[in-house]
Amino acid sequence: MTFFAPASITCFFSVHSADRPYLSGSTGVGITLDLGARATICDEGGVRVNGDTWDFPTVDYVIEKLGCDCGVDIEMDVPAGCGFGMSGASALATAFEINQAFDLRKSFFELADVAHEAEIMCKTGMGDVVCQCYGGVVVRKKPGSPSRAVIDRFLWKMDLDLLTLGPFSTQGLLKDEEGVAHINELGGRYVGVFLENPQVENLFKLSRIFATETELLDSRMEYIVQKVEARGGLASMIMLGRAIFAINGFEVLQEFGEPFRASLGQSGVKCLG
Amino acid sequence: MTFFAPASITCFFSVHSADRPYLSGSTGVGITLDLGARATICDEGGVRVNGDTWDFPTVDYVIEKLGCDCGVDIEMDVPAGCGFGMSGASALATAFEINQAFDLRKSFFELADVAHEAEIMCKTGMGDVVCQCYGGVVVRKKPGSPSRAVIDRFLWKMDLDLLTLGPFSTQGLLKDEEGVAHINELGGRYVGVFLENPQVENLFKLSRIFATETELLDSRMEYIVQKVEARGGLASMIMLGRAIFAINGFEVLQEFGEPFRASLGQSGVKCLG
Repeated sequence: MTFFAPASITCFFSVHSADRPYLSGSTGVGITLDLGARATICDEGGVRVNGDTWDFPTVDYVIEKLGCDCGVDIEMDVPAGCGFGMSGASALATAFEINQAFDLRKSFFELADVAHEAEIMCKTGMGDVVCQCYGGVVVRKKPGSPSRAVIDRFLWKMDLDLLTLGPFSTQGLLKDEEGVAHINELGGRYVGVFLENPQVENLFKLSRIFATETELLDSRMEYIVQKVEARGGLASMIMLGRAIFAINGFEVLQEFGEPFRASLGQSGVKCLG
Repeated sequence: MTFFAPASITCFFSVHSADRPYLSGSTGVGITLDLGARATICDEGGVRVNGDTWDFPTVDYVIEKLGCDCGVDIEMDVPAGCGFGMSGASALATAFEINQAFDLRKSFFELADVAHEAEIMCKTGMGDVVCQCYGGVVVRKKPGSPSRAVIDRFLWKMDLDLLTLGPFSTQGLLKDEEGVAHINELGGRYVGVFLENPQVENLFKLSRIFATETELLDSRMEYIVQKVEARGGLASMIMLGRAIFAINGFEVLQEFGEPFRASLGQSGVKCLG
C-alpha cells in the first residue's frame, strides 16, 4: 500500500508557539499542490528518499511514536528544504501508511496529529500538516494540531509555476523576537483581509506585501517577482523557502533557473492503493 | 469547468431535527465512493441528469440560493433514490461549479452549507453532504451543516460490491415517532461502539445489527445479506435505500440483480478542471 500527501506552500502566516505540540501551530494561507510525497513501508530499516538513505528525524519521530519497527521508502516530487512542506507531507503519508500496514486502527485526526507533533518537535514545520490534510487553498483560521485547528478552504482551478533558488534557513529568523512579532501581526491581519475578498489576485497581492514588509523577500527574489509582474503575471515568495510561486510566470522563471509546473491540489492525504 | 462530489452510503445513523437547517442533520457512519456526480454549468436552463431533463428541487434550491440564472448538466455514476446520496452529491457539485463559473468567491464551507440546507429543505438527505465534503469512511460525531458538524474519518483501502433492488421511501419512516426514537438510540450508540474498534468487520457487524434491530432490513435484503455471509463475505443494507453493500459479495449479488463495484473514495468534492 502507498499513501500520498500533497506538497504545500505558505503565502503568509502567523506563528503560535505553546508548551504542548497540539496547541502549537500557525494561522495563515497555504496552497496544496497536486505534487507531493508518497510513503511505502518496506522490510529494510531506515528512511529512504527517492532511493537514497536519509537522516530524517521528522519521519523517525512518526515511526517511533506509532511504536512500529519498520523502514519507509519515500518518493518526493519536489525538493525538500525549499518551502514545499515535504517534511510534513512525508510525516503525514508515513503515519497513514504505518497505520494501514500494522492495522493500528487510528483515525484520520489521530494520525494527522502525530505528523503535526513530529513537525513541531523536530522544528521542521508549524502548519503544513494542517494544510496537507485538505485540498485546495487552505486558510488556517485558528492554530493547533489538525484535530484542533479551524480551517476553511477554496477549491479553485489554478496552475502554478514554481522555482527554487536554494535553501532558506528559518533558524535565525525564529530567534529574532521583534521580527517574529512583526510577522505575526501582519500574518494574522492578512488572513482576515484575504477572507474579505478571497480570489487569486488578492492572494498574490497580500503574499507580496507580506514578503516585502517582513523583509523576507531578498533582492534577487524581488527582482524575479517584479519581472514576472512586468510581463503580466502574478508572483510572490514561498514561505519559508528561497523559492517563487507564480501564475503565467514560466518564461520569466526560466531565465533564473529550472522552474516546474503544478496545479492546485484538490485532495489532502489519501491512499493510492 | 466541472466539479465532482462523491456518492456516499450510510451504514447507521441518528437523526437530529432542528428549526434551522444548519442545526439539523445526523450523526452516524458513512462511506464515500470513488463514484459520484459531476456538475457542469450550461447555457440552456433547467437541470439535466445524464442527458434527461429532470425536476430536481434540491439542485434548483442551490441555484436559487446562490442567485444565479443558469442551467446545470449533471452526470451521475450511480442511480438516484437508492441510498447513494446522489441528491447531496449533485447539490454539492452544483454549488462549487456555480461559485467558480460566476466568481462568487464563496468558501468551501459556505458552499457546502448551501448544499446541506438544500437537502434539509427539500427533505432529500440529513447528513450526506457532510460526508461528501471528505473522503474515506466518515464518522459524523456531532450533527449540523458542514461548517458545524464534527467529524473524523478513516482512509482505508476498501473495495465494495453494490446492488440496488429498487426505490425505498423514507416518507413513512420519518413520520413514525417511536421508530425514529429507536433508530436514534441505536445509531447514536453505535458511533461510539465503532470508534472503540474502527475496522471493516466491526463496521459491517454494527451496520448489520442496526439494520436488523431497526427493522429496516426487509426479508429479501436479509436473505441476500445472509447468503453473502454464508459464502465468507460481509454485507449489510445501505441506509436509506433498498440496496446492499458488501465485501467479497459480487458473485452472490449477481444472483439477485446487476451489482456494480466501487472503491472507497479518498477525496470529497473537488474540481476536475
